[in-house]
This record gives sequence, structure tokens and C-alpha cells, in this order.
Amino acid sequence: MASIPVLVVGSVALDDIETPAGHRPECLGGSATYFSVSASLFAPIRLVAVVGEDFPEAHVTALRERGVDLGGLERVPGRTFRWKGRYPEENADAVTLDTQLNVFEHFEPKIPESYRDTPIVFLGNIHPALQYDVLDQISKPKLVGADTMNFWISGEREALVRVIERLDLLVINETEAKQLAGERNVYVAAEKIRAMGPKILVVKRGAYGALLFHPEGLFSCPAVPLRSVVDPTGAGDTFASGMIGSLSESGDFGFASFRRAVQAGTVMASFACEGFSLDRVLTVTRDEFTTRLAQLQAVARVE
Amino acid sequence: MASIPVLVVGSVALDDIETPAGHRPECLGGSATYFSVSASLFAPIRLVAVVGEDFPEAHVTALRERGVDLGGLERVPGRTFRWKGRYPEENADAVTLDTQLNVFEHFEPKIPESYRDTPIVFLGNIHPALQYDVLDQISKPKLVGADTMNFWISGEREALVRVIERLDLLVINETEAKQLAGERNVYVAAEKIRAMGPKILVVKRGAYGALLFHPEGLFSCPAVPLRSVVDPTGAGDTFASGMIGSLSESGDFGFASFRRAVQAGTVMASFACEGFSLDRVLTVTRDEFTTRLAQLQAVARVE
Repeated sequence: MASIPVLVVGSVALDDIETPAGHRPECLGGSATYFSVSASLFAPIRLVAVVGEDFPEAHVTALRERGVDLGGLERVPGRTFRWKGRYPEENADAVTLDTQLNVFEHFEPKIPESYRDTPIVFLGNIHPALQYDVLDQISKPKLVGADTMNFWISGEREALVRVIERLDLLVINETEAKQLAGERNVYVAAEKIRAMGPKILVVKRGAYGALLFHPEGLFSCPAVPLRSVVDPTGAGDTFASGMIGSLSESGDFGFASFRRAVQAGTVMASFACEGFSLDRVLTVTRDEFTTRLAQLQAVARVE
Repeated sequence: MASIPVLVVGSVALDDIETPAGHRPECLGGSATYFSVSASLFAPIRLVAVVGEDFPEAHVTALRERGVDLGGLERVPGRTFRWKGRYPEENADAVTLDTQLNVFEHFEPKIPESYRDTPIVFLGNIHPALQYDVLDQISKPKLVGADTMNFWISGEREALVRVIERLDLLVINETEAKQLAGERNVYVAAEKIRAMGPKILVVKRGAYGALLFHPEGLFSCPAVPLRSVVDPTGAGDTFASGMIGSLSESGDFGFASFRRAVQAGTVMASFACEGFSLDRVLTVTRDEFTTRLAQLQAVARVE
């Protein structure tokens, strides 16, 4: 059975990344980039984003070759959104050294007519007012998911709450879930967030895996054991993409399908960590995915 | 089939504990106390420890009523070992406010003749030189396990390494595993520690569960979802006790039995967190254990 098409709206960026494994200037980045490249392993992906005149044509080609539908990728005058960050240690959070919004500052996502009835929609980590605008432009999808971050939770809380009300699924880091709910206990925080709108909540815990809160139950997914992390940038977006890709394949949003989706997200995020930028995500094959999923399931086996 | 007897050597203490849930002065504590009360749900427990003249007889009675064999519990002149700690927030590490070694300062564990061929031995968190002395007093058991902490890793490293060489199983916190190995990656750290002696390593990750490194494979066990933590004191000792108790029941040290043991430890640790001191551990029934183990397995289910 064919996978359900997925619409993703988010950032496409040029990153400058330092980790204990090295330094990579001027590389491909952005939430929608990681999401669409990774999810294209599973589903037809429709990308809505903006880049500037300086965005290398080679990156556009790489996205196209991966099968991403670029009908919603605008190129406008100015420079591409840039982010510079450093991870002081393995498993540490990034320290942002520089952010240049550039063309992203005046970005207003325009959903092409042909995208408006896409059955699955994922709102990457951008200003919640823009996420809201996207929802106003589309017909009622089967599933609407989103990611967000601490910056919007503290600075744009009201706009964020308005978006969250309209979600079926929120994917969020543990620290940010606690921040959003104003609760130190993750299970209590999850309950409060689900009361705000999304029936389904996935809490990402980095090297500790993820928690799925679903109306039919709770699932605690371990992380893939990684002996080294080259660059964790985009791991969260790649996690979401594996989840959404897996749901797009199954077309089923029940607990068993969501448990499997969280495992798929976990596996895809592990690939993202193994190389700088999208290096590893761009080369992952379906066989590699399947092998690693089996490894993850072996590690999680309780009986 | 009868469970295999277990010998535990460690501390029996009087604690003074502050957590966000309240303050409990002068309560029962100590690594061997938590271990033996909890493990007695599964196996015959032989306790070797020391208390002072001030140790309330009611606590001795509580241990005896739980079925713990107190033939190795010395009562000597002086005051009982005391620890005062505060947990500033839920899931935070304890801040030690005061430690009084008292009778523990000159403690030299003497293993009663009748205990010397106990098939399973667990060395609770005490000075590694004392752990070593215990091993010199016993016949070759089927399984020797131990716990340790940062204090000994930084201050008594040489003595600790000599004990670790002689272990089959080390149970240790993630932060301390990384400290012991001098490695930030937990999987690399585990490999280094296992090269030091113990074929089997369990890394405790608090609210994130535990990792089992066994010659036959790796198992990642989630934590029991707890909506509130009253007092995490003794959770690590209770974890170890559930593990050892489960192994004592199965008499089997293969991967499947150890996976099950880690789950049992996880379940017992969750009970320890639900009350101050040993309040909850002292009341846990076998039925409650079985019910919560099934809940844990449901949360971990991948298929």
C-alpha cells in the first residue's frame, strides 16, 4: 500500500557546527531539511520553506534526488537562515554562538494549492504564529504534529498555546515539556500538556530514548546504543521524521502503530548523530533502517 | 524450587532526610538495610553489619519480622552510623549535610562460619578495603556482586580496582560508571569497566531506567513511571536487592534471567521511592511486585 503524503513546514538553513568530533562550517541544516530528507525514506514529502540567493544549488539537488517535492521551497533575495553552534561535550546541549534569521525573518509560509489537502502535516520548529498560519491554510488533515523549543515556550507562550490546542501530536524534548507544563515530574507534565490539546505526546530524552503518551497507553522506548556521537544537530527533527514516516506507511494511528513509529524515529535519530550535518541521513538505506530497528528491539526485549 | 541464600555486607544507619515531600529525622537507613529488607521478598538473606547502642530495638524487630537472618549483625559500644541529606528537587542528587561514621569507623566485617559458603554474595556500598576483606573470608560463591560510589572512586581508587577485579557483577550509577572509566560515552565506559573484571555490569540511570551489559547481550530497561518521588534514598540498594533476589530465585545467571532480574530491581526501586526511609519497602507484598512487574513490561513492549 502506498504511503500517505506528508507536508512539512520548517526551516532550511546553513549551519556552522563544532562538536568534540570536529568543526563543519557552512553545512546544510534546518528542521525541515533534516525532516524531509529522512522522512523521504518512508513517504512522499512536500516541503514548504525559504532559502536565500546564497543557498547552494547542490543542496537543492541533494533534496530533489532524495525524492523531496520542492514545489513549496521559495528562493528569495537575501541570505539563507544561518545558525552557528557548539556542543562542548558529547551528550551536552548545544551552545548557540550566532543566529542570523536573514530571509527567515520575513518568511510567511505559503502552502501551494496542490498541498492543501495533504493528509499528514508536520510543523517543524518555527515561530508558533507561523505554525498557526499554516494550519489556517490547509484542509482538515488526518494527523497534525509539531515540534517546538524553549525559545518559543518562554518568549511566545500565548501563540504557542494557540497552536498546541490544534495539534493531534506534539513532539518535544523532556526539559521543554517540563518547562511548558511548569512541572518537574515528566508524567505529570505530560498529562498537563495533553490537556492543552494534543491527544498524543512524544517526549524526547536524547541518549535516554523517548516516552510515548497515547490514549491507549504509555510506551518507553530506549535509545539506540551509540558508541560515539559525531553531531547531534537535527536528531530531534530526524526523530520526528522517522515517526511520521512510519505512520505514513501504516496509515494507522493506534497505539501499536505509534509504538512502532517511535522506534522508527529513534532509529533515524541515531543515524543523524553519526555524521556531521545530513551526511549520514542522506545515505541511509531501507536495509540499514530495518537492521537497526531489529537491534533496537533486541535491546528493549523484556521477556 | 527454593531460592539460593544471599549474603549481604554493608551499612545499617540512622538517616535524617529532607526531600520536597517532607523531612524525616532519625529514620532507618543504610545500604545493607534497604538491600536485606527488599531482597527478603525473594530469598533467605544473611546480613553482616554493625550498629551502636542507640539503634532502636524496634528496627531490629522489623528486620527480623521480614525474615532477615541477623546472625551477622553486631551491636557494639558507641553510636550508629548517621547520614543527613537533602534532595533539593525531585530527581535531583542528594546533598550530604552531615556524615557521622561512629561505630562504622572501626567496622571490620566478620563473616560468621555458617555464612561462609553462601552461594550469592552482595557487597553493599562500603569502603572497598572492607569489601575485599569479605571476599577473603568466604568460599568461592556462585555469584559475587557489588555496588560502589563516587567517594571511593575518587578517594580509594586502588583499593576499589582490586575489589572490582574479583567481581562477577558490578551495579553502579551512570555518572559513577563514567567517572570510574574516565569516559563520557556510557557504552565505551561499560566496555572498559568489564575489562577490569566483572563480566556483568548494570548501569543505573535513575528515572531513566538501567542498562544491563551481559556476555550474551545488552538490555535497556525503562524505569517504572512514577508520578511522584517521596524519597529516593536507598533506591540503588533496593534495585540491587531486587536483581539479586530474582537471580536467587532462578538460580540461573544467563541473559534471560538477568534481564528479568534487572526488571525486578527496577520494580523494587520504584517502591523504595514511594515512601520515606523503608516505609514502603517494608510493606511490599509479592502480589504488588508481580502487578508492577507486569506494568513495567507493558510500558517496555516494542512489538
